[in-house]
Amino acid sequence: MRQDYHIQLAELGEHGARMCRVVNNAMRDSTRSLLDRDLALAEDVIARDVAIDEMRANVEDVALQLLALQAPVASDLRVVVSALWIVSDLQRMGALAIHVAKAARRRHPSAVVPTEVRPVFERMGRVAVHLADQAELVLRDRDLVLARSLDDEDDLMDDLHREMFSLLNDPEWSRGAGVAVDIALLGRFYERFADHAVAIARRAVFLITGENVGGDTTPRFESLDA
Amino acid sequence: MRQDYHIQLAELGEHGARMCRVVNNAMRDSTRSLLDRDLALAEDVIARDVAIDEMRANVEDVALQLLALQAPVASDLRVVVSALWIVSDLQRMGALAIHVAKAARRRHPSAVVPTEVRPVFERMGRVAVHLADQAELVLRDRDLVLARSLDDEDDLMDDLHREMFSLLNDPEWSRGAGVAVDIALLGRFYERFADHAVAIARRAVFLITGENVGGDTTPRFESLDA
Repeated sequence: MRQDYHIQLAELGEHGARMCRVVNNAMRDSTRSLLDRDLALAEDVIARDVAIDEMRANVEDVALQLLALQAPVASDLRVVVSALWIVSDLQRMGALAIHVAKAARRRHPSAVVPTEVRPVFERMGRVAVHLADQAELVLRDRDLVLARSLDDEDDLMDDLHREMFSLLNDPEWSRGAGVAVDIALLGRFYERFADHAVAIARRAVFLITGENVGGDTTPRFESLDA
Repeated sequence: MRQDYHIQLAELGEHGARMCRVVNNAMRDSTRSLLDRDLALAEDVIARDVAIDEMRANVEDVALQLLALQAPVASDLRVVVSALWIVSDLQRMGALAIHVAKAARRRHPSAVVPTEVRPVFERMGRVAVHLADQAELVLRDRDLVLARSLDDEDDLMDDLHREMFSLLNDPEWSRGAGVAVDIALLGRFYERFADHAVAIARRAVFLITGENVGGDTTPRFESLDA
């Protein structure tokens, strides 16, 4: 038996918020596995990919079913379309968290992150988790003011990313090219994770107001900057 | 006056294929600007971001309008939903092409890509453009066999990406950490561009058959591999 339309619609929003929690926990744990060289935790995060893809498929299937059978309009339609958009960002956030855990696993028992870069990554981890927390709140409370503020919070991640590059480009850098490459790619994963959290907030602006501001933002900082 | 429903629907597919051409040309030109140190061409590619975002917004607006006013079902609904998905991938592809052009601009008149890595980037550029060509064909012809084959073609990009990393991790590598970081991030941009072309083909499988296989693929090669 097909569930009641409004229950399905409400569940769609709930599923998005819950998936946001799941990928956020994945990033929190993968950061811990990276900084503490915790192989078991890294493996645990990596194993979450199936569950994350199932959540994506479930939201998409419910959204498609609602579109096909209920032809929602107005704010109901926005719930369905924004769910389709947001779940794509959430899936990428999950993939990025898993990339971080795989880096931790690959170098184990060596550290990926040398001591002098560690504080930057601790902060990138915290900012990433905070942005995803905010994105979840936006989805749960449909808070327009909070949604619009996430763009600015992302500046913190850009600052950290810039700080990371200045360490890599320091003439004193003594760790070699291989370590620098690992660090640069890890930094990119955190930056993209944050971008997707902001994209969710932008899609929530559409959900709440109907104004389509797009998901992607123009980056203010270019990754390859020296 | 609102256009006829079926004209709008056909245009949605046409817009997707045309945008695929635009972002593909951007990647072709940015690769050329990178390898030939062509600053004017790099600037030209970078300036295309507004046009690309306008195409994204236009497709999304038409899709939203069709959903709200026409409540399409069955294959018509799949045209609309797949357009929403595909346009997100296309926008990212455009952003990645622009990242490459920005790298060329930033290091100008120096080369970003040292001589020994150049052949790999020439081939990554060719594979990227080829995959986007195929994705455009899939969209134009709704060719299911071609759509399903793109996953395998993407293996070529993974091989090149692996080759690039083995150059960076060669004990003979003498270009320093900064150059290695540039190269690694550029390689990531090409790899992601290719992944999005494959994602478009996967969404086209849904468009043609109604089978939702998702957009994202599990990478067979991990970027940080030594």
